[in-house]
Amino acid sequence: MDLKVDIARCSAELDRLAQFSDVPAPAVQRIVFTETDLAARAYLVGLFEEAGLKVRHDTVGNIFARWEGTDPTLPPVATGSHTDAIPYSGKYDGTVGVLGGLEAIRTLQRAMRAAGFTPAVPRRSIELVMFTSEEPTRFAYGCLGSRLLSGQLPPDAAAKLTDADGQNLDNVRQSAGFTGPLADVKLQPGHYSAFAELHIEQGPLLERANLDIGAVTAIAAPAALRVRYTGPGGHAGGVMMADRRDPLLAASRLALEVDAAARESGSPDTVGTVGVLDVHPRAVNSIPRDVLLEIDVRDIDGPRRDRVLERIKQKAKQFGDELGVPTTIEMINADPPATSDPAIVAAIEQSCVDAKLTHQRMVSRAYHDSLFMSLVCPIAMIFIPCRDGMSHRPEEYSSPAAIRAGIEVLARTLYQLAQ
Amino acid sequence: MDLKVDIARCSAELDRLAQFSDVPAPAVQRIVFTETDLAARAYLVGLFEEAGLKVRHDTVGNIFARWEGTDPTLPPVATGSHTDAIPYSGKYDGTVGVLGGLEAIRTLQRAMRAAGFTPAVPRRSIELVMFTSEEPTRFAYGCLGSRLLSGQLPPDAAAKLTDADGQNLDNVRQSAGFTGPLADVKLQPGHYSAFAELHIEQGPLLERANLDIGAVTAIAAPAALRVRYTGPGGHAGGVMMADRRDPLLAASRLALEVDAAARESGSPDTVGTVGVLDVHPRAVNSIPRDVLLEIDVRDIDGPRRDRVLERIKQKAKQFGDELGVPTTIEMINADPPATSDPAIVAAIEQSCVDAKLTHQRMVSRAYHDSLFMSLVCPIAMIFIPCRDGMSHRPEEYSSPAAIRAGIEVLARTLYQLAQ
Repeated sequence: MDLKVDIARCSAELDRLAQFSDVPAPAVQRIVFTETDLAARAYLVGLFEEAGLKVRHDTVGNIFARWEGTDPTLPPVATGSHTDAIPYSGKYDGTVGVLGGLEAIRTLQRAMRAAGFTPAVPRRSIELVMFTSEEPTRFAYGCLGSRLLSGQLPPDAAAKLTDADGQNLDNVRQSAGFTGPLADVKLQPGHYSAFAELHIEQGPLLERANLDIGAVTAIAAPAALRVRYTGPGGHAGGVMMADRRDPLLAASRLALEVDAAARESGSPDTVGTVGVLDVHPRAVNSIPRDVLLEIDVRDIDGPRRDRVLERIKQKAKQFGDELGVPTTIEMINADPPATSDPAIVAAIEQSCVDAKLTHQRMVSRAYHDSLFMSLVCPIAMIFIPCRDGMSHRPEEYSSPAAIRAGIEVLARTLYQLAQ
Repeated sequence: MDLKVDIARCSAELDRLAQFSDVPAPAVQRIVFTETDLAARAYLVGLFEEAGLKVRHDTVGNIFARWEGTDPTLPPVATGSHTDAIPYSGKYDGTVGVLGGLEAIRTLQRAMRAAGFTPAVPRRSIELVMFTSEEPTRFAYGCLGSRLLSGQLPPDAAAKLTDADGQNLDNVRQSAGFTGPLADVKLQPGHYSAFAELHIEQGPLLERANLDIGAVTAIAAPAALRVRYTGPGGHAGGVMMADRRDPLLAASRLALEVDAAARESGSPDTVGTVGVLDVHPRAVNSIPRDVLLEIDVRDIDGPRRDRVLERIKQKAKQFGDELGVPTTIEMINADPPATSDPAIVAAIEQSCVDAKLTHQRMVSRAYHDSLFMSLVCPIAMIFIPCRDGMSHRPEEYSSPAAIRAGIEVLARTLYQLAQ
């Protein structure tokens, strides 16, 4: 079939979605269940319905838009991603998978009508999923929606998660209009026949190799933890150095240790980051009294990542002990890596050949809802290049040509899988 | 004369003043020119007027309450301190010098009337000063009011200082009701004949030595600087370690260096602290992009402190260069130490003898408005013990007995100086 992607329309929709933001352009911030997020959802649901898709949502805010096939009793093929956005991020992370997924479906609709199919729908239904709360900003867990869909996170545990203001998820999702038991979210294994997610690479490799498409074969194992050090505080002028127990010194040592532990793992695939370091009471003439770190560690290899985590936790405690400041260590999450299904990877590669696009196999260093959907059904991901590999910053950029290529490959892949 | 300090009244007034706070008790926060600060000022002015003092204020909000003497043409004796309070501090820092100074004056009023003086006032006027903006929280400079009174800070420079919201001092002070030229604040040298400030020690030495009073002979030289590191930021999962330029790593090295530089100065009198370390954008899955440190360095010895500052600035730049992250270094202030006037110190010691209180000579590690008043007139300070030397934290505490002793010594000292 000849597929004509309407990239002008999709680009305009990406731009419009980026305007739903709580920080000034070009940065984006759209935290789950905020007014801005709810307004963006309304915009998207409008687009889904306009495309003739049957829209429903579940009790935690995952949104499903179904293009019903000739045999709706068969497990559908699914695609999708997220639209929430961390502070001061860009406009392509996740959104390309949702609006690109929508355009992939619209492209197939047009192509099948033009090719004379009657009805002009595939055999299996194709379902577009907008996962809720993929970013960890509000409730600490990344991929909250897909964790619940897959059963990786039990509903009781999810209900009690609180945000920085002490509000729990259960109340927040209900106030946002998503009511009913959280236990209803979980899908049965095999609910879908396959899940394929289109996403920007968030790394520099496709651009450096000048390739159009990455066929993702595995997703790195993510982990995060919180470390808190507490000291007596005191007057910056009045307390002699010998009398001090300053938690910022332990935290500083730990920040350097996280970096070293990742670099010294034996593989360049390990990454470690301190993204949050909060100092209380935060006054120039006051010795820090309370310091909180949030640490992110990832690797393609689960056991290697866990060795790095152990090193970090052990050193965290050692630095606190050496300084005489009580240390609290709390794991937030540590998930195993995921492997793509070979048949879907093959379908992606075939789609690239059919679309005359260059491609390579690669791994995903960032984790995505696909990681947890791998517990429900076979999965794979389609990557497109992004400029300088930049992401989680306003300069994040993928060209319309790159996005168009990704949408065409997604459309062809979904079509193959939906037969 | 027999002096009877009404410590019950003064303690009640200290407790009342502590209630003017923007954080919950027992912590105190009272930032200059906020609603809470203005309400506290109104309360204090009421007390000053109740004591029959003539109250005026200057154009930046320093408040003066004068007990007129028999010869008002002579330069008055002054006492006083501040009532603004940093975030999560205690209720005695500065307030003991203002409410204690008020009670010292009321004590002398009662004593002179009881002793039959006619009129019951000393020869020189005695003036109680409530210095504005002693804490650096809002406008970066500590002792803003006394810097302007002494001419150490020119009015044009002061007018342009901005707070964290970008509002400048000139607008803020006028909105608070303090209008007129800032140039009017400056006092002529010799405006006062002497200035003596009562303050809690903010250190543990008097308590450890079980002494009632510290006669302060010198005030340490304070300095503060800002260092900012800026990197590209990026995705915590997506950017390989070899490709990173993380400003938090430079900042962590610098925090450890500040501590080492202070400890290695050759003297226990050097202190160095990082009280502020801000990470932007502050998200667990985002590599820090911008990190700001605020650094406090102090010493009794000016040249030694300056050597420590040089080491810190040099290392700050080195760490930025090694990491490839642009470094901005901005000195906020670097003031010379101050020496107390021997005659006032002698008057303080004589007052201790007359009051049958134990005492020792000592230096002040924290700096105070007295540091800048030393450019206007002879100065000295009177210290009282505080529990465990704690300050700049809610646990800050001086007993009523300790405060009573300080007030009696202040009253006797002021009386001697006012002859």
